[in-house]
Amino acid sequence: MFTQRPRPAPPTAPKGVLSVTTPSSPHGLSRISQPPVANQLFSWHLRAPLKDVPAAVDRALDAYFDHSAAEFSVIAPEFNDAMAVLRGFVLGGGKRVRPTFAWAGFRAGLEGGGADNSSIQDVDPASVLLALSALEFVQACALIHDDIIDESDTRRGNPTTHRVFESQHRERGWFGSSDHYGISQAILAGDLALSWADDLLATAGLSPSIVERVRAPWRAMRTEVIAGQQLDIALENNGSESIADAMQVINFKTASYTVARPLHIGAALAGADERTIELLREYGTLVGQAFQLRDDQLGVFGDPTVTGKPSGDDLRTGKRTVLVNTAFAECSPEQLARLREDFGPLPGAAEHTAEQIDRMRQIIQDCGAAQQIENKINDLSERAISLVEESWLEGSISEELVAFARLLSDRRF
Amino acid sequence: MFTQRPRPAPPTAPKGVLSVTTPSSPHGLSRISQPPVANQLFSWHLRAPLKDVPAAVDRALDAYFDHSAAEFSVIAPEFNDAMAVLRGFVLGGGKRVRPTFAWAGFRAGLEGGGADNSSIQDVDPASVLLALSALEFVQACALIHDDIIDESDTRRGNPTTHRVFESQHRERGWFGSSDHYGISQAILAGDLALSWADDLLATAGLSPSIVERVRAPWRAMRTEVIAGQQLDIALENNGSESIADAMQVINFKTASYTVARPLHIGAALAGADERTIELLREYGTLVGQAFQLRDDQLGVFGDPTVTGKPSGDDLRTGKRTVLVNTAFAECSPEQLARLREDFGPLPGAAEHTAEQIDRMRQIIQDCGAAQQIENKINDLSERAISLVEESWLEGSISEELVAFARLLSDRRF
Repeated sequence: MFTQRPRPAPPTAPKGVLSVTTPSSPHGLSRISQPPVANQLFSWHLRAPLKDVPAAVDRALDAYFDHSAAEFSVIAPEFNDAMAVLRGFVLGGGKRVRPTFAWAGFRAGLEGGGADNSSIQDVDPASVLLALSALEFVQACALIHDDIIDESDTRRGNPTTHRVFESQHRERGWFGSSDHYGISQAILAGDLALSWADDLLATAGLSPSIVERVRAPWRAMRTEVIAGQQLDIALENNGSESIADAMQVINFKTASYTVARPLHIGAALAGADERTIELLREYGTLVGQAFQLRDDQLGVFGDPTVTGKPSGDDLRTGKRTVLVNTAFAECSPEQLARLREDFGPLPGAAEHTAEQIDRMRQIIQDCGAAQQIENKINDLSERAISLVEESWLEGSISEELVAFARLLSDRRF
Repeated sequence: MFTQRPRPAPPTAPKGVLSVTTPSSPHGLSRISQPPVANQLFSWHLRAPLKDVPAAVDRALDAYFDHSAAEFSVIAPEFNDAMAVLRGFVLGGGKRVRPTFAWAGFRAGLEGGGADNSSIQDVDPASVLLALSALEFVQACALIHDDIIDESDTRRGNPTTHRVFESQHRERGWFGSSDHYGISQAILAGDLALSWADDLLATAGLSPSIVERVRAPWRAMRTEVIAGQQLDIALENNGSESIADAMQVINFKTASYTVARPLHIGAALAGADERTIELLREYGTLVGQAFQLRDDQLGVFGDPTVTGKPSGDDLRTGKRTVLVNTAFAECSPEQLARLREDFGPLPGAAEHTAEQIDRMRQIIQDCGAAQQIENKINDLSERAISLVEESWLEGSISEELVAFARLLSDRRF
């Protein structure tokens, strides 16, 4: 594990001097600068369509990294390197789904949701968008830490964050274990992202009383996603094949975190009334469940030329999804024995032949589980659409929410 | 690594039913409850002495765990287990140094620091203490993640958090790697603590405009401690023997995070004037540097019967402290060669004989490094004391700050 140390370079500090590298003051950072001003980043308005959100979020995040890189560059070159890795990850991809739903919630609040423009008359719409971009920092922490937990090598076609740090260690010929170094720095990079999520929310230019409106759903969302993840890992390791357990993971890791709470946060920020927040959360839960069930289904039956992932990816990793656990519950004793044997040991990936994958897929189909999930997705999606169509929401946001529900549940990738 | 799966227990959900375990609403948690009310937890007043802080912090944290356990218990029993592990860690020890310094900053703001009681007339003193207890959640995240990074087995005489989760996995006879499971759950437990730090600050009963006062130092503090940790790991791995580098780790990982920023946060919360905040940060940086240099010195020369740690602990782990790097800079070429050979490979622990430890200790003494650091500690401590004694601070807080500076730099354990 350990490399013998060669003769190191001479210390950089003059002999006998306890020098302290604090450029401008005796106590570290002398000034705390203000984050970027939202309305100088992009023009934004109260009716901006959902499709425009991702590009604006990218600009917001980019500006925040510029600002942070400048503010914290006095600490050490090694920290600049670490910030650059985080920046590469956050700006290296992502569909910005959570800020988009949050913006949808904000607009729904204004378009029939009980909030009026006067309640946010002092609010710069660009500051709202900047604040909602903070959800991407929560997501960055979740993904960076998930990739350590899942021991993943790639994410969005790039090396995962712990692998990036690992490569830097190796390429620079540093001492000790490159692998452990990569994991250590990535844990801290995730912590930095989680801290910056709060910082961006708090410093986006919204007044403290406006930020206060979103504190409760923001607080709930973060605990829910961590809880969902802790539950997921426990279930992977304790061998649960319960449909209800797998559904509970969906509820917290996806439905709440990805859709319902972002909608809630956006609506609360606008000052929406309670019934609208309840409506959006119910819509969000239905859409989020449908989204994840579709994801599970594509993980088994997806066309690799469309999804970009290997055929039967979830079968290879042995994940006990709602679909898989439904098959366990629905199939005959003979099919069950076959299915378990093909899955192999828990938890995690086993080697599978193409025949095994095909056989597992066939059983999930034959026992009726696949159709049951398909029906469930359609049911959830239709209920979400009806909720919105029959609601008091006005204007284009209602149509956009309906289109979103269809898009997310009908997707083939 | 993987255990073969035995026949699992039957799924808990009825066959064919996609049941969703959401007890009271179709979208997960139905209510977001309010955290504990501070002044029902303890009586507290604006002049409460520093020595009373730790016990009050313990009560505050205990109440917050009670509240959270009740609020989030609907998610899953597995998450209740995870919350219980975090609770055991946070309430299992700790000197509450950071909330104590924060309370010192708050009182300094009121006692001659430019804040007057009218500026906080609507503030319940117990809410201030509750909010400042949030620093312990930041610290919990830092320690839990540090213990993963340092691969430590014990902390405060108890198993580290990843080892607790690992033991649970093993004792329950779960599948897969107990070791990896422990690390995974501990990463998430740290994330939960970091999230709850913000939550407790935001929900302690202070008005949004009062909380807003501490946002800037709060933000700086978190980035600084993560940066200090990222720098520390990088230096451990790149073989730096620079005194200035090691001093920069002290500045951010200890001086800023443990003393200067907590003082800053408390003073800002009270509405202290800028010159008092600057004074406290300068005092805090000096005291924090002295504290850590004393820590480094005890790590080499400390009496194991007093410190409770093995003699020469820092020498065994090979840590490049300011003291060690000063010795590298001060000693003769012969001593240097001897010292490097005895230290062994970077980074981390090597096996050492008692003779090696004694020899290293002797060289650090003989070359004058030990005395240089002792002088430095005294100098820092005296400067901190003079700063306060010659300042405009009034009343007992001034005496308490002086006593604290002496206590932290003179300690033998």
